[in-house]
Amino acid sequence: MTYQAPSGLGAGDVLLCFLPEHMLPDETWAKKIESKFPGLKARYLAQEEPETGDVRDINSIPQDLWPGVTVLASLYPPDTDKIPNIRFVQVPSSGADRWIKHDIYKKPGVVLCTSNGTHAPQIAEWVIGTWIMARHQFLAYAGYMKDGSGWAHRTDHQGDDSTGTRVGILGYGAIGRQVARIATSLGMEVYAYTRGEKTTAAARFDDSYCVEGTGDAEGKLPAKWFHGSSRAAVNDFLSQDLDLLVVATPLTSATTGLLDTEQFACLSQARKDNGKAGTYIVNIARGKVISTDALLVALKTNQISGAALDVTDPEPLPEDHELWHAPNVFIAPHVSWHSSHMRQRALSILETNLARLHSGEPLVNVINKEFNY
Amino acid sequence: MTYQAPSGLGAGDVLLCFLPEHMLPDETWAKKIESKFPGLKARYLAQEEPETGDVRDINSIPQDLWPGVTVLASLYPPDTDKIPNIRFVQVPSSGADRWIKHDIYKKPGVVLCTSNGTHAPQIAEWVIGTWIMARHQFLAYAGYMKDGSGWAHRTDHQGDDSTGTRVGILGYGAIGRQVARIATSLGMEVYAYTRGEKTTAAARFDDSYCVEGTGDAEGKLPAKWFHGSSRAAVNDFLSQDLDLLVVATPLTSATTGLLDTEQFACLSQARKDNGKAGTYIVNIARGKVISTDALLVALKTNQISGAALDVTDPEPLPEDHELWHAPNVFIAPHVSWHSSHMRQRALSILETNLARLHSGEPLVNVINKEFNY
Repeated sequence: MTYQAPSGLGAGDVLLCFLPEHMLPDETWAKKIESKFPGLKARYLAQEEPETGDVRDINSIPQDLWPGVTVLASLYPPDTDKIPNIRFVQVPSSGADRWIKHDIYKKPGVVLCTSNGTHAPQIAEWVIGTWIMARHQFLAYAGYMKDGSGWAHRTDHQGDDSTGTRVGILGYGAIGRQVARIATSLGMEVYAYTRGEKTTAAARFDDSYCVEGTGDAEGKLPAKWFHGSSRAAVNDFLSQDLDLLVVATPLTSATTGLLDTEQFACLSQARKDNGKAGTYIVNIARGKVISTDALLVALKTNQISGAALDVTDPEPLPEDHELWHAPNVFIAPHVSWHSSHMRQRALSILETNLARLHSGEPLVNVINKEFNY
Repeated sequence: MTYQAPSGLGAGDVLLCFLPEHMLPDETWAKKIESKFPGLKARYLAQEEPETGDVRDINSIPQDLWPGVTVLASLYPPDTDKIPNIRFVQVPSSGADRWIKHDIYKKPGVVLCTSNGTHAPQIAEWVIGTWIMARHQFLAYAGYMKDGSGWAHRTDHQGDDSTGTRVGILGYGAIGRQVARIATSLGMEVYAYTRGEKTTAAARFDDSYCVEGTGDAEGKLPAKWFHGSSRAAVNDFLSQDLDLLVVATPLTSATTGLLDTEQFACLSQARKDNGKAGTYIVNIARGKVISTDALLVALKTNQISGAALDVTDPEPLPEDHELWHAPNVFIAPHVSWHSSHMRQRALSILETNLARLHSGEPLVNVINKEFNY
């Protein structure tokens, strides 16, 4: 399944990092890498234009950066003829949407790795933070600060804790596993959904990059596992009386529009059957996993109790889009991945993979080209 | 240290529950208790006036509720002559402020227990929720929802995760221990401060009521323990380069005004020495533990990076108080204890203590009259 690159890294290899400022190597790091793999040349350039901050077209960067590139760290694929000798691509994001349709992606000799796991701590905090914010009515109280009327509204809202509630995690990868860890500490019950079946300890183990002290590499936290790639399997999962649904799947053709009218009905019916308020949904995956039209209806009709969205469809969400004003929604402009630790984590994973490429070991976070993640 | 009530409970005993609506027993519960302890009479009355919702004066409730009361569950102490035969008082809050100065409190034959621990899950969530909200800039993004301008402000803020940060927990009781559990799941380091020294496993063990699956009864989570009752000891703790300070001490004469100008200077100096932004403070204890004047100065001068306050001094905080508009502050009207689980937990702890009173076992959550908590 995993493509194994020829081992050895050094003379004849050129690394080009075309990365966001907040992940970009500096001269010290480049020198360290060059001395670790003698003969390797390390080049780097920020993806942002220095003046405007706009992302440069990767095909328009100085041409002298390209010759000999065998290893590329970039969110953006260049024209194929720029990198005829490419061996390995490190994508600095959890998904590889932009690479999937590219010629290079299809070349059997090229291994692509994501930076899956580098975003897990902050995105999992975003998930649990928005869930607590909704449950404890923080935005209502923030509103009363304007006129100092907090105590006058003291009995208007009912906050609640998470003990005994159930979170369904759709996509039990790096982010989902850290959500599970925090949720467990809150006294919540975790139900996990994965594409493939996970019945054995080996299958539940996740060997992808994980920030120390976080996550659930062994897959020991879920009380119950669900799996499948059919709508029926998803609907069954959504019918498990979920207090919180966390959407943490990669965006693939199979997950595009995964949550639509029928799925909101499943969520809602299970809660009604148990006499409970609707499920709260947090989407930190990609906007297109959820049908925006169906989501709007579900919010307006109280099929769900609310939603926190760091991603939307369309994205950016236009200023006049009605989703901004739907009831019980919180929307952030795709920022849940923010962290001061990104450079350290991104470069640590790149360095680990360079070392493994050199020694011939399997790389970390290799994209499975069959499933596109 | 612990007062041991004479054992036996039944004929001759009368339980009166004068409790908030959300904790009040019903007929079913009363009947269950009466059959569990034959001879015991169980009476109950909501502390709120049915019409206005205002709290009734406990001395003005129907006089036929008082005769024979030996066990009282109430936040409010009645006149001493109402309960000449009182044996045990269950206070439905974590602190027992109102009881401490009361004659009954001083009677050596009366045991008082708090409901310490029933509030820990929700208050710990409030602590971690406000910390994440501040760190991930939720209120800024909520503000942009009004005009749909979120994506236009996409690069204005820098969110950050909690991995590798340090939380100092001032008062390592039920709430502090659940904060520690969640913080640990976020990859944070926990420093604990207690009044008395805790060097042994036995000393670190907390036998007070704890909601299953939460907390740190064994005291295994802190990386470092601090203790003392002097200002010097507190100042040393505050100088430990804390990213987050959680104020979770009971309010006693020793903790009134505990955090004043000098203490904010300690917090601030330690952060400056390490080239870091100021400590974020969360107070879920009592307003009077912090000097409001000193807090205002600390917020305005960036000695601290912000504060989340569920309690204030004065409280209620007047509408025109300048604290509402201090920079980087979040204020809620003393609601962090809200939970739909309060009745179940409060009655569970009362029932446990009735059973222990009956069997002669040590009660749960006995107030240590030497330290007033």
